Amino acid sequence: MGVLVRGGRVVNADRTFRADVYCDDGLIQAVGEGLEVPQGTEVVDAGGAFVMPGGIDPHTHMELPFMGTVATEDFYSGTAAGFAGGTTMIIDFVIPNPQQRLLDAYRQWRGWAEKAAGDYSFHVAVTWWDDSVHADMGTLVTQCGVNSFKHFMAYKNAIMADDEVLVNSFSRALELGAIPTVHAENGELVFQLQKKLLAKGIAGPEGHPLSRPAAVEGEAANRAIQIANVLGVPVYIVHVSCKDSLDAITRARNAGQRVYGEVLAGHLVVDDSVYRHPDFDFAAAHVMSPPFRPKEHQEALWHGLQSGNLQTTATDHCCFCTEQKAMGKGDFSKIPNGTGGVEDRMTVLWHHGVNSGRLTMNEFVAATSANAAKIFNLYPRKGLVAVGSDADLVVWDPKASKTISAKTQHQKVDLNIFEGMAVEGLAVTTISQGRIVYDKGDLRAVKGAGRYIDRPAFPTVYEAVRKTAERTAPKAVER
Amino acid sequence: MGVLVRGGRVVNADRTFRADVYCDDGLIQAVGEGLEVPQGTEVVDAGGAFVMPGGIDPHTHMELPFMGTVATEDFYSGTAAGFAGGTTMIIDFVIPNPQQRLLDAYRQWRGWAEKAAGDYSFHVAVTWWDDSVHADMGTLVTQCGVNSFKHFMAYKNAIMADDEVLVNSFSRALELGAIPTVHAENGELVFQLQKKLLAKGIAGPEGHPLSRPAAVEGEAANRAIQIANVLGVPVYIVHVSCKDSLDAITRARNAGQRVYGEVLAGHLVVDDSVYRHPDFDFAAAHVMSPPFRPKEHQEALWHGLQSGNLQTTATDHCCFCTEQKAMGKGDFSKIPNGTGGVEDRMTVLWHHGVNSGRLTMNEFVAATSANAAKIFNLYPRKGLVAVGSDADLVVWDPKASKTISAKTQHQKVDLNIFEGMAVEGLAVTTISQGRIVYDKGDLRAVKGAGRYIDRPAFPTVYEAVRKTAERTAPKAVER
Amino acid sequence: MGVLVRGGRVVNADRTFRADVYCDDGLIQAVGEGLEVPQGTEVVDAGGAFVMPGGIDPHTHMELPFMGTVATEDFYSGTAAGFAGGTTMIIDFVIPNPQQRLLDAYRQWRGWAEKAAGDYSFHVAVTWWDDSVHADMGTLVTQCGVNSFKHFMAYKNAIMADDEVLVNSFSRALELGAIPTVHAENGELVFQLQKKLLAKGIAGPEGHPLSRPAAVEGEAANRAIQIANVLGVPVYIVHVSCKDSLDAITRARNAGQRVYGEVLAGHLVVDDSVYRHPDFDFAAAHVMSPPFRPKEHQEALWHGLQSGNLQTTATDHCCFCTEQKAMGKGDFSKIPNGTGGVEDRMTVLWHHGVNSGRLTMNEFVAATSANAAKIFNLYPRKGLVAVGSDADLVVWDPKASKTISAKTQHQKVDLNIFEGMAVEGLAVTTISQGRIVYDKGDLRAVKGAGRYIDRPAFPTVYEAVRKTAERTAPKAVER
Amino acid sequence: MGVLVRGGRVVNADRTFRADVYCDDGLIQAVGEGLEVPQGTEVVDAGGAFVMPGGIDPHTHMELPFMGTVATEDFYSGTAAGFAGGTTMIIDFVIPNPQQRLLDAYRQWRGWAEKAAGDYSFHVAVTWWDDSVHADMGTLVTQCGVNSFKHFMAYKNAIMADDEVLVNSFSRALELGAIPTVHAENGELVFQLQKKLLAKGIAGPEGHPLSRPAAVEGEAANRAIQIANVLGVPVYIVHVSCKDSLDAITRARNAGQRVYGEVLAGHLVVDDSVYRHPDFDFAAAHVMSPPFRPKEHQEALWHGLQSGNLQTTATDHCCFCTEQKAMGKGDFSKIPNGTGGVEDRMTVLWHHGVNSGRLTMNEFVAATSANAAKIFNLYPRKGLVAVGSDADLVVWDPKASKTISAKTQHQKVDLNIFEGMAVEGLAVTTISQGRIVYDKGDLRAVKGAGRYIDRPAFPTVYEAVRKTAERTAPKAVER
Ligand SMILES: [Zn+2]
Ligand SMILES: [Zn+2]
Ligand SMILES: [Zn+2]
Ligand SMILES: [Zn+2]
Ligand SMILES: [Zn+2]
Ligand SMILES: [Zn+2]
Ligand SMILES: [Zn+2]
Ligand SMILES: [Zn+2]
Repeated sequence: MGVLVRGGRVVNADRTFRADVYCDDGLIQAVGEGLEVPQGTEVVDAGGAFVMPGGIDPHTHMELPFMGTVATEDFYSGTAAGFAGGTTMIIDFVIPNPQQRLLDAYRQWRGWAEKAAGDYSFHVAVTWWDDSVHADMGTLVTQCGVNSFKHFMAYKNAIMADDEVLVNSFSRALELGAIPTVHAENGELVFQLQKKLLAKGIAGPEGHPLSRPAAVEGEAANRAIQIANVLGVPVYIVHVSCKDSLDAITRARNAGQRVYGEVLAGHLVVDDSVYRHPDFDFAAAHVMSPPFRPKEHQEALWHGLQSGNLQTTATDHCCFCTEQKAMGKGDFSKIPNGTGGVEDRMTVLWHHGVNSGRLTMNEFVAATSANAAKIFNLYPRKGLVAVGSDADLVVWDPKASKTISAKTQHQKVDLNIFEGMAVEGLAVTTISQGRIVYDKGDLRAVKGAGRYIDRPAFPTVYEAVRKTAERTAPKAVER
Repeated sequence: MGVLVRGGRVVNADRTFRADVYCDDGLIQAVGEGLEVPQGTEVVDAGGAFVMPGGIDPHTHMELPFMGTVATEDFYSGTAAGFAGGTTMIIDFVIPNPQQRLLDAYRQWRGWAEKAAGDYSFHVAVTWWDDSVHADMGTLVTQCGVNSFKHFMAYKNAIMADDEVLVNSFSRALELGAIPTVHAENGELVFQLQKKLLAKGIAGPEGHPLSRPAAVEGEAANRAIQIANVLGVPVYIVHVSCKDSLDAITRARNAGQRVYGEVLAGHLVVDDSVYRHPDFDFAAAHVMSPPFRPKEHQEALWHGLQSGNLQTTATDHCCFCTEQKAMGKGDFSKIPNGTGGVEDRMTVLWHHGVNSGRLTMNEFVAATSANAAKIFNLYPRKGLVAVGSDADLVVWDPKASKTISAKTQHQKVDLNIFEGMAVEGLAVTTISQGRIVYDKGDLRAVKGAGRYIDRPAFPTVYEAVRKTAERTAPKAVER
Repeated sequence: MGVLVRGGRVVNADRTFRADVYCDDGLIQAVGEGLEVPQGTEVVDAGGAFVMPGGIDPHTHMELPFMGTVATEDFYSGTAAGFAGGTTMIIDFVIPNPQQRLLDAYRQWRGWAEKAAGDYSFHVAVTWWDDSVHADMGTLVTQCGVNSFKHFMAYKNAIMADDEVLVNSFSRALELGAIPTVHAENGELVFQLQKKLLAKGIAGPEGHPLSRPAAVEGEAANRAIQIANVLGVPVYIVHVSCKDSLDAITRARNAGQRVYGEVLAGHLVVDDSVYRHPDFDFAAAHVMSPPFRPKEHQEALWHGLQSGNLQTTATDHCCFCTEQKAMGKGDFSKIPNGTGGVEDRMTVLWHHGVNSGRLTMNEFVAATSANAAKIFNLYPRKGLVAVGSDADLVVWDPKASKTISAKTQHQKVDLNIFEGMAVEGLAVTTISQGRIVYDKGDLRAVKGAGRYIDRPAFPTVYEAVRKTAERTAPKAVER
Repeated sequence: MGVLVRGGRVVNADRTFRADVYCDDGLIQAVGEGLEVPQGTEVVDAGGAFVMPGGIDPHTHMELPFMGTVATEDFYSGTAAGFAGGTTMIIDFVIPNPQQRLLDAYRQWRGWAEKAAGDYSFHVAVTWWDDSVHADMGTLVTQCGVNSFKHFMAYKNAIMADDEVLVNSFSRALELGAIPTVHAENGELVFQLQKKLLAKGIAGPEGHPLSRPAAVEGEAANRAIQIANVLGVPVYIVHVSCKDSLDAITRARNAGQRVYGEVLAGHLVVDDSVYRHPDFDFAAAHVMSPPFRPKEHQEALWHGLQSGNLQTTATDHCCFCTEQKAMGKGDFSKIPNGTGGVEDRMTVLWHHGVNSGRLTMNEFVAATSANAAKIFNLYPRKGLVAVGSDADLVVWDPKASKTISAKTQHQKVDLNIFEGMAVEGLAVTTISQGRIVYDKGDLRAVKGAGRYIDRPAFPTVYEAVRKTAERTAPKAVER
């Protein structure tokens, strides 16, 4: 039984137009004005509203085991919370322990994710290197629908990838037609700064940003980008939080390099004053890496979105409750790193981006879904309102408003970094796989209804990558 | 009677997919695999080929009266030559003499253009300022389908616009929802350098680039952009030929400003060594402004296209024959400025851009049609292969090849700046308004078949412009 | 009768060392440890203090007729106030009215300056152009000891120089071996913004910075620099107040161009919040051009000094009293533009620069005297503590402190933009021409004792300018 | 017995003036016009010539054991060759093997250097880390006159320092008031590229630059600089060979960071076409790291010197003969890395720098001696012609000319990367410790006459470093 979204204006990344959208069998079947539909079709009235591709959050960590505890939000509750905010797909992370086979970890995460209500996919982290990693990367790409690999340049003595791992893994990704992604912070510097700060008696959450200044991120971003440059592989920098790493991306893009950057909703609007709040719980609630930054970085990040130097928005959704955060009382380096937002991302971006004139509506769609779909080779299945695409839609009411609060949210955590923020412009109805999963406050998520989405290798950019490699191939001198 | 383009892969700016395309009544009526079409439909076999939106050349000067002569290519021959290269629309320029009413000039050009075989539109130049100009700009936008105004920062004592004209005209464009465009060269410097060079006895074509160094363009581009920045109006820089002006654009875009840049096919592949050629005719054939540049600028321009800092490609098609060029024998400043290319632009960009791995095919489409259509508010009527769009198509054979030559071209001039260049990847069939106008060497252009295309004001970017203006409006202090 | 400065540490731009300094006949006669001096020599005890070259303020406007009134500080009171702050020389400005002969204006200013207590020199402004200006520039350089010319890119309908004046005057300066200097603001934009703001009812001092945003300065600085670049002449940008113009300088310097930048003490430490102060008198007291800027620009300006992209510090000392400022009640554009500081510059720079670790002491000397002396070809006569140099010295006590206030200053005006600022590090004794002119609060300035200082043409940088011109001279192609 | 240099023009970094220079007891005793000197004083006629501080080459490797062989030039022959080119002091490198105590290595090098004819000093490399390294760094600084430590970011599996070593050593240098220096190339990338190239059959010298592209250097320079930035320590990048690393320095300097850059004479004038020369011996003769670069980098490096973003010039003098170079026939990675130049540096820089108008003579002195002396805290003992400074002088004849050749050089090697270069401007007389050691072709170097020069810790920049650290110290939040 189909669903008709009637009377709205469709907003795609490239244009806006009046059209009804008819969904059935999980797909968009028709897009046009005054559509005729079968009797019994459920009708969503989108008059005065915008109809956009459902949001894709390309960076979440549902039920992640991390720093001695486990993130509270699981795949079910997290994808459901996404629905409430207009997000219909997440890309989460498989993070093997060092020495753990990548395929084993992948299977573990696939198991956990079966309860998801919305569609999902996985980046797989490369946290160490040997021949099995090389082999498993191949299997993951050719048989498991994985086309992106994550690298942590921070977290020394745990999952940190040094230059050797980076060069090996990036080279392998290039062979496979996959996209390397990077958490960019110089782990050695973080490690040493943590030690020095604790030694000086700076043990509270204010130590967190002091141990991870912007230059630490800028350095690592530049390193990853230049390694990719030398190898000739595209690269994607996750959670760009500051001018320093944005500048590294911008420089590379201006030089014609294929580099992508992701920004979190939080980094766009929250600043580092939170860490100096006298209440430990409040300050600790904001501990994530990279940390929130001095205000001047926020304007730079908006410029990154406006110029296209940053393409995607995400959340790094990784929820820990007040009680979990308290594990780091007395030692900021033990506060579980992570904050939520999968439910809030789109409204925060709309309110501060579109309402303020920083972004057009089409740019909003690009930044919340279409670009992630293109980069990670899900497009046009996801990220587009068009015949044949998955029927993942959000009906967006630009006049609806609310005040964000942990008290009223669907996210399974007692904190919200946007607490108290008044926003205008909300998802009123969300459709996933052609079914209404959220409607004006009524969340109808179904546990296990979410599908694992294969992402094929060799996204379009590889056309250019391959031909460039041919054009610039090294040649021997005959002697 | 319809036309079916069968068996090709459709390449749009956002994606590539297998589909037939059925055209009738001048519009695209269907896009899909295995389309059923009425009997009698003409069929174009696009097997192994790409089907792309017809090219838009946003910068031509057909039959322009300039520097004491008239460009040889007229609206008929020029649009026909465009067809032979896959280009189905041009945006030409109305250039009033100082003191001439803008509307009078507009009517003059409309008359000349009636013979066009392909669709066309006009930018209107603002070459002077008084109340009538202010009024005519309004009329042009609201009644004549003009949404862009051109400003020459060079050509002192002729059509040069000084800062006063720029500020007035940009302010007016902002009110009207139009886009100011700029020929960026510091006219005062050019004027003085010409005098100095001639006084030193440097009178040959080599004096042309010496009188217009890259810094002259960079300065003017930066000035126009910063004026636009202060006023809060988008701005479009035509024929960006060098790193200096590209950098001005890039800096502004990186700061979130809404700036667009156009690059000519010639500037991407021809360098300034041509002006030192011992043969006057050869050297003079390349005289255009801005001039061709030292090689290092070319790589920068490609990077501009790759990064999206440049959005459009054009030709500044303005043809003068060897005989006309000879007017400047003995004084380079009297050589009529202009070169052709409307027929060659797409193949040159494909060969050097797509074949080399600098651009993906989708980026090629963006740079040859979709972006111009978006910026000048023709999209999705033009620049897109989709149901409802104008049936302007090019069937592109990536394996076809030729050597460019004035001897074999359709352009009405005895010169070609790409003379002798071997290219792979050609338009094999071109469709305009749903009719086949070029097919494997057979040019079927019809004089007068081209239509004047209205371009409505307030393209999408104005959403952001208006809200930004509200957000940042100056406020008085109460005292 | 000589003066011995005993027991201090001499701080020059290149090094710091223990030495006594013996002065006689207006010159430094000896520098060394444990100097033997004639009986009767006056001794200044510099134990625990630093002995530095007297400050040079390269940008003052004593008794300037401007905006319908006259600056209150005259050459006597102004140079005397300089002594109290350690400054022993000023370079003031001759500003001809349009159509006034440069030589006439020069003689007028020479007359006014005869009362000066300290040494002085003049930049001469080029505010219009004809053959007489060309001729007078020659006379001024070859016969009058002038080696720098000033250009105002702002003040439309008054003294504004358009591109034609700039190009002509810069070219002439190049022939003469002189340095063009520029007040960089786009006068057309300022003019239009003033009109728009007043039309919107924004008539208070808050309209002043709104009519002169940073981009207005950045544009003009870039234009002047690029004109200089094209012509091959060095250029000096006065009162760089913002990131935008600093960036234009930095870009040019990084490209090897010979560009200099000056920053005012005020712009380093005062921000634009002053203009929104509810008290008109307070706000108006800060009206000068370019205006004070948002805080982020200050850090950039400090970086400019640290990196050497800015070389000199000045004040633009141009004093108007509260009563004069009130002329602009009801119309900010009529508030006389100008603020003081010749007395405060060095202590403000020491306190915020040296005490904070932004500058070393040697860099302080470079920024307060040596660099101005080098650029304007006064070095080593001025700007250096060495045998044979003018005996212009300041004994600097790094432990002395005070609170700056109009109530206690020597400057002849009832306002001070540094009002209430506590500073540590003060001039305790100042020596001009070998005489003690200020000693621990005792100001011993003598009216008329100041000398006009000739500045010869062709400073050292012209070595490079001339050879570069030869290397890059345009050459004709033989045909 | 003294030496009088009579009738020349003294060129210091800050100014040029006529003066005789009288030397005795190894020191400059008098500087002035028409000096009276004791009878028997040896007189050098400097009429028409310039008298400058003797050159300091801050980067040499005499008799270095490296890559299985030993550099041919020893401390005696190398310092003597320096004399022949006007260089009177070198700073060489102590390079401990991993696990070798720093102090042991230091003593080894001190022993080798006893034969030096000219003054010398040592940077000490930190090639590994443990507590003994920490301790030895302290001893070297406080007891051995070492104030700089070198780090190789390349040479994996040999002397490469990873981030952990860098952070530890930079932190220790900061405590000690020493300057960390860095050979900036990403060793992991070089290692992998070497493997890939050899695997592809690219085994000749052309593989050398292919395995070390500019981005490899840019990345490492940026990393070292940002580590220094985060720790708050100054840093010096040796042999900056390309735009990429220069840009990293420039960005940091523009942000106020205390970063220094050194450029080699070779990188300024030799380009990477040498590696594609069909003669193996010729190509191999140019193998050094970083390699020579495409031409566009050279202009950038000159701009670096002009802007002051690069401060020093050096040679990385490390000579291997044709026979030694042949060790890498069949595997470019085995060609001993190194080229000479200690004899040629000054004339190459004069000819291409001063004669071309790129540098003034004062800037030449800054770049060849004064800046190195300042950065490494030898100033004003070295790098200045002034009373009390060491009597290390070069008499420079701007009209003298020669053609550089291995056949006529004093350098002990059968190769010269400047072979065949005609230069104008030569050292005609060189004075070391007040003795004439070179005079118009007559080399009078004395084995063992050179002295080890102590360099004290805490150069001037540490004033700023210390106060900045205080101003920006992290503070705990009271909770
Ligand atoms: Zn992360
Ligand atoms: Zn994450
Ligand atoms: Zn043009
Ligand atoms: Zn044109
Ligand atoms: Zn001014
Ligand atoms: Zn002024
Ligand atoms: Zn090295
Ligand atoms: Zn070395």
